[in-house]
Amino acid sequence: TNPVFTGLQTTIFETMSRMANATGAINLGQGFPDVDGPEDVRRIAASALIDGPNQYPPMLGLPELRQAVAETNKRFYDLDVDWQSEVLVTSGATEALADSLMALLEPGDEVILIEPLYDCYLPLVKRAGGIPVRLRVTPPHWRLDLEALAAAFTENTKAILINNPMNPAAKVFSEDELSEIARLCIEYGVYAICDEVYEHLLFDGRAHMPLMAFPGMRERCVRIGSAGKTFSLTGWKVGYITAAPNLLDPIAKAHQFVTFTTPPNLQKAVAYGLAKEDDYFFDLRDDLQEKRDRISRGLAALGFGVLPCAGTYFVTCDVSPLGLEGDDVAICQQLVEEAGVAVVPVSAFYVSDAPSNFVRFCFCKRDSVIDGALERLGDWV
Amino acid sequence: TNPVFTGLQTTIFETMSRMANATGAINLGQGFPDVDGPEDVRRIAASALIDGPNQYPPMLGLPELRQAVAETNKRFYDLDVDWQSEVLVTSGATEALADSLMALLEPGDEVILIEPLYDCYLPLVKRAGGIPVRLRVTPPHWRLDLEALAAAFTENTKAILINNPMNPAAKVFSEDELSEIARLCIEYGVYAICDEVYEHLLFDGRAHMPLMAFPGMRERCVRIGSAGKTFSLTGWKVGYITAAPNLLDPIAKAHQFVTFTTPPNLQKAVAYGLAKEDDYFFDLRDDLQEKRDRISRGLAALGFGVLPCAGTYFVTCDVSPLGLEGDDVAICQQLVEEAGVAVVPVSAFYVSDAPSNFVRFCFCKRDSVIDGALERLGDWV
Ligand SMILES: CSCCC(=O)C(=O)O
Ligand SMILES: CSCCC(=O)C(=O)O
Repeated sequence: TNPVFTGLQTTIFETMSRMANATGAINLGQGFPDVDGPEDVRRIAASALIDGPNQYPPMLGLPELRQAVAETNKRFYDLDVDWQSEVLVTSGATEALADSLMALLEPGDEVILIEPLYDCYLPLVKRAGGIPVRLRVTPPHWRLDLEALAAAFTENTKAILINNPMNPAAKVFSEDELSEIARLCIEYGVYAICDEVYEHLLFDGRAHMPLMAFPGMRERCVRIGSAGKTFSLTGWKVGYITAAPNLLDPIAKAHQFVTFTTPPNLQKAVAYGLAKEDDYFFDLRDDLQEKRDRISRGLAALGFGVLPCAGTYFVTCDVSPLGLEGDDVAICQQLVEEAGVAVVPVSAFYVSDAPSNFVRFCFCKRDSVIDGALERLGDWV
Repeated sequence: TNPVFTGLQTTIFETMSRMANATGAINLGQGFPDVDGPEDVRRIAASALIDGPNQYPPMLGLPELRQAVAETNKRFYDLDVDWQSEVLVTSGATEALADSLMALLEPGDEVILIEPLYDCYLPLVKRAGGIPVRLRVTPPHWRLDLEALAAAFTENTKAILINNPMNPAAKVFSEDELSEIARLCIEYGVYAICDEVYEHLLFDGRAHMPLMAFPGMRERCVRIGSAGKTFSLTGWKVGYITAAPNLLDPIAKAHQFVTFTTPPNLQKAVAYGLAKEDDYFFDLRDDLQEKRDRISRGLAALGFGVLPCAGTYFVTCDVSPLGLEGDDVAICQQLVEEAGVAVVPVSAFYVSDAPSNFVRFCFCKRDSVIDGALERLGDWV
């Protein structure tokens, strides 16, 4: 069996969710909302199951969803996209990443990755034959060292993979960082695979800047979005890729042979969802910003070293002010067992030399659940 | 970009469907039913969208669906399966194949494939780093040459991929053929990846024999099934894998990073569907057998050289008795444009030296549609 997968652990998210279920802990680990997204969107998906057809939609996705993706690119980022040649629907952002890496990499190509790494990045790059070249940002500032960045680019670099806003750092890449990434991509002829699933979850008035919108990047970016994150329906596994035709074409071929297509009723409902008024997207964001403030205030009051959160629905805390130190996996174990709150160790996002005193809280939860978790943590502290 | 995908054509199924849509032809090309599967199954899927939760289900699939898959293995094939360690739900059989090949192959491993090949087999094997070793069966008898089979196994062989019942041949592998495949797999320590998506579509009293049920094969078979085929809901993209724990484990890791999971509402409905009485499965089969007879009779009366069809919902015809000869792609083009009936050229399933006078008709269509196609073909002949 293939060494990339053999012996791999089950993902930390699933492991913590299983532990939470087994122990009755409040689950602030795996990133999913505890309230399902818009009922009107779900009703459309339900009606389409009854009305049909429930057969293969076009391989690239339903035209109405591809058009809607193109329109949101225009509406939110002023990106002009031809839906027919530049938009592909996938069975979630994970499949979008798999397709992109399988399609763009050849064995031996170097791929620049920035730790902390979402769990699928490294195995997918390796299984696609790529050579991972790791950079890192670390708490509390998560700043990208631009010299290290420049040094990572070589003539063997095929792609850089970035997650912006970034899980679990809750970092939003600065314009300077993105400009420099863009400059280097252009200089070295490198593709940028942009996992932008949290594109609508930026706080404090920040506006998402897709790397694709930077000059010269239109032709070399693969921009990945997620209905799961945007509509709080993570189980739906509907993602979408925007990329120039010369990139989208091989990616669509990979998609053709990886899942072929995505349930048409869900696609139809997501198309409807993406056409919602701006207020839907702003309310989602504002609501999460309030939750961020709620949990951050509460955790700070308990003595956690709460880091700033500029985007995503995660907040990272330094636990050393509580006297917890040394092994964040053990600390998470302790938190789930003793405090009854499941969280995720930040070290899980690093290959080695991980920061060891940081844990991630997921806050896309009902206020009562956040308050309940804070209460349990308070009792425990 | 990766040479396996770059420059690949869009799959023949999609191409013919597009042509059918563009020309108003009756589409007997791409394999999908024109009547959606059971309304009760669809209603359950619809209710689950409204009732929720619509968040990530467990990575391996909903327990109730995994249990249902294990139970059908027992009910239909007397295979004892531990649902917890031996069943995985995937986003369709295509993903199941992708996961299996990514997980089981290492670069340089030989994989035995039997032409005619379903379109994703060859690119997936290549992209996983495998070396395809091709065998072939050909019309009209589609018999497997057991000497050629034995000669294909070497110490470099890692896996054989078989499709039983076989698309487009409508062949059901004989017990002798399966025994010999099993014997060789055991002798050479080879895995068998068994695409058995048409397992419930065998005609004339035939019973499906999973290769996994042959002595010694329990530990080396990956058995793939499809809710899309079994419930006439091809758009749902729900598949399932049954495999021994040592194989399922790395395959689940691949799945974790390829799609992670599959929509929970569809999983719930498929679990309900698999628990239906035997009659559901028998009626599906009997209904398709009648359609097979209907289209076969009609095509024979028009002079097509109709080949036997033991399983699947496809029937292949020799078109040379009609004086059509030489290039089945051109013949299909002619049929769609002049006769207004879209079919699929059998040569699309071969890499080279394809039989050239054979076309595939898909018959999982309403009787009126089959009759309409026969009428158009009659007018044209
Ligand atoms: C695919 S499960 C993980 C969900 C998630 O994005 C996270 O928890 O980081
Ligand atoms: C995935 S589209 C092809 C459907 C099918 O199985 C076929 O037509 O052979």
